[in-house]
Amino acid sequence: MRNAPMQRKYDAADPLALFKRVRSDSRELAVPLSDADATVQSMPDASPAKWHLAHTTWFFERMVLKEHVTQYTEFDPSFDFLFNSYYETIGDRQPRPRRGMISRPSLECVMDYREHVDAAMDRLLSETSLPDVVEIVELGCHHEQQHQELLLTDVLHMFAQNPLKPSYESSEPLAVEATPSEGHQWHNYEGGIVEIGHSGPGFAFDCEGPRHRVLIEPYALAGKLVTNGDWINFIEDGGYRETLLWLSEGWDWVRKENQCMPLYWNYRDGEYWTMTLRGAQPVDSTAPVCHLSYFEADAFAAWAGCRLPSEAEWENAAANVASDGNFANSGRLRPRPAKESDSNPTQLYGDTWEWTRSAYQAYPGFKAVEGAVGEYNGKFMCGQFVLRGGSCVTPTGHIRSTYRNFFPPDAQWQFSGLRLAKDLP
Amino acid sequence: MRNAPMQRKYDAADPLALFKRVRSDSRELAVPLSDADATVQSMPDASPAKWHLAHTTWFFERMVLKEHVTQYTEFDPSFDFLFNSYYETIGDRQPRPRRGMISRPSLECVMDYREHVDAAMDRLLSETSLPDVVEIVELGCHHEQQHQELLLTDVLHMFAQNPLKPSYESSEPLAVEATPSEGHQWHNYEGGIVEIGHSGPGFAFDCEGPRHRVLIEPYALAGKLVTNGDWINFIEDGGYRETLLWLSEGWDWVRKENQCMPLYWNYRDGEYWTMTLRGAQPVDSTAPVCHLSYFEADAFAAWAGCRLPSEAEWENAAANVASDGNFANSGRLRPRPAKESDSNPTQLYGDTWEWTRSAYQAYPGFKAVEGAVGEYNGKFMCGQFVLRGGSCVTPTGHIRSTYRNFFPPDAQWQFSGLRLAKDLP
Amino acid sequence: MRNAPMQRKYDAADPLALFKRVRSDSRELAVPLSDADATVQSMPDASPAKWHLAHTTWFFERMVLKEHVTQYTEFDPSFDFLFNSYYETIGDRQPRPRRGMISRPSLECVMDYREHVDAAMDRLLSETSLPDVVEIVELGCHHEQQHQELLLTDVLHMFAQNPLKPSYESSEPLAVEATPSEGHQWHNYEGGIVEIGHSGPGFAFDCEGPRHRVLIEPYALAGKLVTNGDWINFIEDGGYRETLLWLSEGWDWVRKENQCMPLYWNYRDGEYWTMTLRGAQPVDSTAPVCHLSYFEADAFAAWAGCRLPSEAEWENAAANVASDGNFANSGRLRPRPAKESDSNPTQLYGDTWEWTRSAYQAYPGFKAVEGAVGEYNGKFMCGQFVLRGGSCVTPTGHIRSTYRNFFPPDAQWQFSGLRLAKDLP
Amino acid sequence: MRNAPMQRKYDAADPLALFKRVRSDSRELAVPLSDADATVQSMPDASPAKWHLAHTTWFFERMVLKEHVTQYTEFDPSFDFLFNSYYETIGDRQPRPRRGMISRPSLECVMDYREHVDAAMDRLLSETSLPDVVEIVELGCHHEQQHQELLLTDVLHMFAQNPLKPSYESSEPLAVEATPSEGHQWHNYEGGIVEIGHSGPGFAFDCEGPRHRVLIEPYALAGKLVTNGDWINFIEDGGYRETLLWLSEGWDWVRKENQCMPLYWNYRDGEYWTMTLRGAQPVDSTAPVCHLSYFEADAFAAWAGCRLPSEAEWENAAANVASDGNFANSGRLRPRPAKESDSNPTQLYGDTWEWTRSAYQAYPGFKAVEGAVGEYNGKFMCGQFVLRGGSCVTPTGHIRSTYRNFFPPDAQWQFSGLRLAKDLP
Repeated sequence: MRNAPMQRKYDAADPLALFKRVRSDSRELAVPLSDADATVQSMPDASPAKWHLAHTTWFFERMVLKEHVTQYTEFDPSFDFLFNSYYETIGDRQPRPRRGMISRPSLECVMDYREHVDAAMDRLLSETSLPDVVEIVELGCHHEQQHQELLLTDVLHMFAQNPLKPSYESSEPLAVEATPSEGHQWHNYEGGIVEIGHSGPGFAFDCEGPRHRVLIEPYALAGKLVTNGDWINFIEDGGYRETLLWLSEGWDWVRKENQCMPLYWNYRDGEYWTMTLRGAQPVDSTAPVCHLSYFEADAFAAWAGCRLPSEAEWENAAANVASDGNFANSGRLRPRPAKESDSNPTQLYGDTWEWTRSAYQAYPGFKAVEGAVGEYNGKFMCGQFVLRGGSCVTPTGHIRSTYRNFFPPDAQWQFSGLRLAKDLP
Repeated sequence: MRNAPMQRKYDAADPLALFKRVRSDSRELAVPLSDADATVQSMPDASPAKWHLAHTTWFFERMVLKEHVTQYTEFDPSFDFLFNSYYETIGDRQPRPRRGMISRPSLECVMDYREHVDAAMDRLLSETSLPDVVEIVELGCHHEQQHQELLLTDVLHMFAQNPLKPSYESSEPLAVEATPSEGHQWHNYEGGIVEIGHSGPGFAFDCEGPRHRVLIEPYALAGKLVTNGDWINFIEDGGYRETLLWLSEGWDWVRKENQCMPLYWNYRDGEYWTMTLRGAQPVDSTAPVCHLSYFEADAFAAWAGCRLPSEAEWENAAANVASDGNFANSGRLRPRPAKESDSNPTQLYGDTWEWTRSAYQAYPGFKAVEGAVGEYNGKFMCGQFVLRGGSCVTPTGHIRSTYRNFFPPDAQWQFSGLRLAKDLP
Repeated sequence: MRNAPMQRKYDAADPLALFKRVRSDSRELAVPLSDADATVQSMPDASPAKWHLAHTTWFFERMVLKEHVTQYTEFDPSFDFLFNSYYETIGDRQPRPRRGMISRPSLECVMDYREHVDAAMDRLLSETSLPDVVEIVELGCHHEQQHQELLLTDVLHMFAQNPLKPSYESSEPLAVEATPSEGHQWHNYEGGIVEIGHSGPGFAFDCEGPRHRVLIEPYALAGKLVTNGDWINFIEDGGYRETLLWLSEGWDWVRKENQCMPLYWNYRDGEYWTMTLRGAQPVDSTAPVCHLSYFEADAFAAWAGCRLPSEAEWENAAANVASDGNFANSGRLRPRPAKESDSNPTQLYGDTWEWTRSAYQAYPGFKAVEGAVGEYNGKFMCGQFVLRGGSCVTPTGHIRSTYRNFFPPDAQWQFSGLRLAKDLP
Repeated sequence: MRNAPMQRKYDAADPLALFKRVRSDSRELAVPLSDADATVQSMPDASPAKWHLAHTTWFFERMVLKEHVTQYTEFDPSFDFLFNSYYETIGDRQPRPRRGMISRPSLECVMDYREHVDAAMDRLLSETSLPDVVEIVELGCHHEQQHQELLLTDVLHMFAQNPLKPSYESSEPLAVEATPSEGHQWHNYEGGIVEIGHSGPGFAFDCEGPRHRVLIEPYALAGKLVTNGDWINFIEDGGYRETLLWLSEGWDWVRKENQCMPLYWNYRDGEYWTMTLRGAQPVDSTAPVCHLSYFEADAFAAWAGCRLPSEAEWENAAANVASDGNFANSGRLRPRPAKESDSNPTQLYGDTWEWTRSAYQAYPGFKAVEGAVGEYNGKFMCGQFVLRGGSCVTPTGHIRSTYRNFFPPDAQWQFSGLRLAKDLP
């Protein structure tokens, strides 16, 4: 997920408190990492942890301090080149696939950079409450939360490349709080003309709006996410070998990459194992399946005689369900088995991102905001699918029912799973 | 465009007459081609003319004659391997990018194959009017019409690779029947809940249905297609160099391929030239621009301060406009300048395919049909955009308001152009 | 093999007779080919037959007629672009991997081009015996003979891509004239300071000289070529799976391409088959193995506890053995089993090209000739290995003991085999 | 340069002293590196510093300690997988292009590994002087010296990718000790039958022998290396744009990679700069040119009307010239301008590796040694060229006149330059 500016003004009660909390959260995430851990780039789509930590800092330096603090002293002029992500109007930058070449500045130096910027931000936010500043600071905080999730996602990918299978956090297995998997409940929805999308005072990225009407037909959503146990059934029923289940492009992907299980899984001595932030662990059959491509999610739905939900269907069901807030910052960092619930689907928030069948496209009436932060609104609206709900590594406070994450259909390294849907007569 | 089975039963008045007409049309298309012309494959996405002529014949042999004629003698058993396109359940086949390796069978032999199958089909259709047979024959005819368009599209691409720039038809330039290009009219639509998609007795491919309700907001469509003259303005205003106009993936495509004008165009001695089925010709500034990628169409719309229409918007506007039937079979084979019209947009049918902003996805309630012909319904519903309206090389009788063509966003070699749209307040 | 200009002046007795014979031979080779056969390019390293027929003609037009006939009328000015191979100083040209895009001019038109040029050449050579003309004509004739071999080599490769496995010549198998394969004789050579390389009045390419001294140690050469039967032993002993036998680059090639038998071979129903100019044929275990890469030849020699000969060793042994002249023009077109001989190694000429262990490098004192024909002397002296002896598709009169053919180590599509060598104490 | 086992027994006076010195040298080289510096892999052909430090240690653990010390406790069993380079018979290993994924073990842990192995080696070598052990220890020391050079070479490449252009050693420029560049002297050699290759008691890699006779013709060698100033002349005379100067494959490389100056050079504000182990520095026109591909060296020689020497010519001239020992361990780390000398060519040792025209091939009579260390003798004898003389980063004591370094012709990242040669009449 790439940052995009917020959609409308926001009356943030205490931007400095928000800023401090988010910045401190990032610092915490870096604690288990060595200088080398924070430097390696494991594939072109992933970034080094150090880059995430520096880029989010650069965002405040470039978009806030250089714009609003006349006496501000830049930490290092070369960082504009090193830590710009994709703002073409701001200037040239280190090519994305070469971010892992940057052994220096060291992690320690990047942490100094963070301190330098944090101190200047503290001074600024203690003195001003200009709406322009407050607005961009809030955007920067949400932007940084996105990168917090990406940092963990990318660290997992990097450690998974290492034959030693290092752990990011303690490798002690969590106690399993399993719900017996006796199938799942369906929850029915009438559809009709409903409203989706963001409006109102809270923060949202611009692509979440405008709020608008859509027409949906009657449908049902599964009460919980598809589990690892379900996925093993799919594998053992030959799901990865049955061409008829797959999109044409998905089938090419399966054959070219010899796909036969989710990313990070392997099978040895009669058991499935996976790689996690706690190192290699046996697959827990009651937990939600994770690290799937859209192709896999779509094929599974076909195998199950169902389909993926549209994003409107998902949002319509989720809008009135409160998230329970038990996410990444709580130190969990892996999806949980479902707890029973009669009234609503469970696991809507904070376990795995849920692939929807919806291509990522502009909502009716969508307009990009002006200026550098809004430079590229909508530039990613091509070839990607929407995911909803947030994952176990999404920061607390970064989830809402209107949130639109998006990735290309072959992306597996996100904490991505699925929930089934079907038409009602 | 890939063939997909029809959506519902059809009471074809005279299937044999339809069959004969379509088969004869294909034969006509082959007349200007040498054996070598019909053999070369100019890129993996294109097929040799010979392959189109044989594959459409194989479709009748495999899906009709082998299924319904007990005494049928196969023309050549190896053709099952050579001329299957992508039916995985039917068996292995010549890999698509290697279709151009097949110097034999010769074009003459393929024409013999056509005669052999036509004779058997003639006997069958003179004796039976079984609904199953009639239905699949009609599908085969529409399938063949798709390949007629592709044959011309691919021949143009192949001749464009040849430094001699050969002509498929007479290279004499057509008289220009230009409308003075004093800007264009907008046509306004109220939107609301409207119905789109196919229903009723006529033929349609399955992805055109089910007919269903959609909610659209008020919008306007341009009265005519964007012209070559408009496109030259875009070029000369720096459109291909302005990153802000482009989708992220589109901008990568521009830079990687050094895109700076539509496919087949070049600029020499102060004039733009293009490659056509009449050989190299100067660009006619009053004619619709053609051979654009989605990326280009989308960037142009952004440059013009507009957007592309959705497919629902297009169909809603086009549903009540009759096509004038003046298409490929008339021997035209190039887009025409617009004729004025007050009441409706012009050039909706039969000039260029119009890129829409709609990702190609299943309509609500869409279900694949059973059996080999329906094997892959929806398998292409990923990463492609819908085009509407038909082009100057689409066969007469193959156009309708519900027709959904689809291609990936970087495809340029189709006869693809655009029409602008905008929101109304 | 690429053309390179001759090394020294030549007193050709009757250049017109030579010219007519060579040109007529090429015409004969084209007889079994259709327009489509002559147009297809099966890989970037191969060229269409039509291109070979036109390029050799262009050579005479460009290098002789345009230089020496004031009133000469060019057949078609665009051919300079189409049929130049790699003469950078002469101008731009059709990129080599795109030679297969040229469906026009047709094969018939190319044959007209040949007639046009032949007529002009006939007039010129009847009138003049200028040494400059005679010399370049002779070079052109040898150049054309090289392309005769390549034409057959490339036609075989193209037909091998076709699932129908067409025959170039009658598919009737030749009678086998086998020698019982009871092992082979070794022929011993003393070595010392010997002379190799061309000198004297006969024609040779420039890289064959200067004649010079080399020091070689005592060695032995196998009396005959390695056979298909030997190769089956190598396969069945696990030769393609034993990493220790292979060069590092060769082992990468084996694994990447899943190499497990020579090019064109396949194994079905307990028997090895291969593709030949007579279509698919069972492998004849007594015939020389053919279509090997250098990597394979080198690995086989290691497996056999021997090594490949150096080119100096080969030439030293072959210099006094007369070729028996029974080559391509006789209509053979496949390697023959060995006939016994006590005095000398057999099969030195005209069965398969023999890979040597010698990198293709300049002989001491080598100098490029001046002008366009000598433009690129030595430009290929990097990354290639020398082959000696000529093959069953090398034209009569094009073989001699000093002849140096050369190809990269992964090239398999030539008629290439091997002969073993070893050190003597 | 890849390690290859020694050619013959060696009577090392004090193997423990040798071992300690070499191991200590490696430790010194690591001092300026951070954990991150030591982890990054900048291209598939380069390895992380940490990998060099661990692999050389693994060599002693695997080849000496595990073979000869019964009670030896392995430091970490996973290191066999991580730090094997290419010994196929020893087992699977981390793929070379993925060596940069290994953020753990840390540099500190690798240094602990070194200590662990050093202590065990110390114990072993204090107790034994078995010839088998002494021999393999000496080989391991020379192997480690090769990796010392590669470590510096790869660190330079990595730092060159970093826009900050970090320094490995102090960035203070060295004082220039220039010789006025008034052209260069030629040194003439008679040639004849000479002996080259290693023999006798000192250490050598197996490919340096057997010592054997070669026949060389009279030739001359330039008295000094080609300088940066000479290279600027070549650039400014259009050397990189003149196709006639280049090998065919070299010209493809120039065009595909847009080559226009040596690796690490750039041109800004009227001056050439280069990247060095002291960071970015202006190009010193009197110093030898460095970081050239074979293609560049060969093209320069053609431009200068000369040629590259063969390795026999080089060795014949160098055999009686003593190296002055002023190499890497002295802390220099960059090539020096030439000092005048009348009697012999200068700069033969320890400035830049000198490309020769000789393909890397086996000497007559070459045989691989048995066992794992000799597993792949000669496996690299394909597609590479020999370099002679050693560079400014080659360790003291690792240079001799028979030493054969080898790299593919497009390799630029070594400290490689050239010396001109020419034929004498």
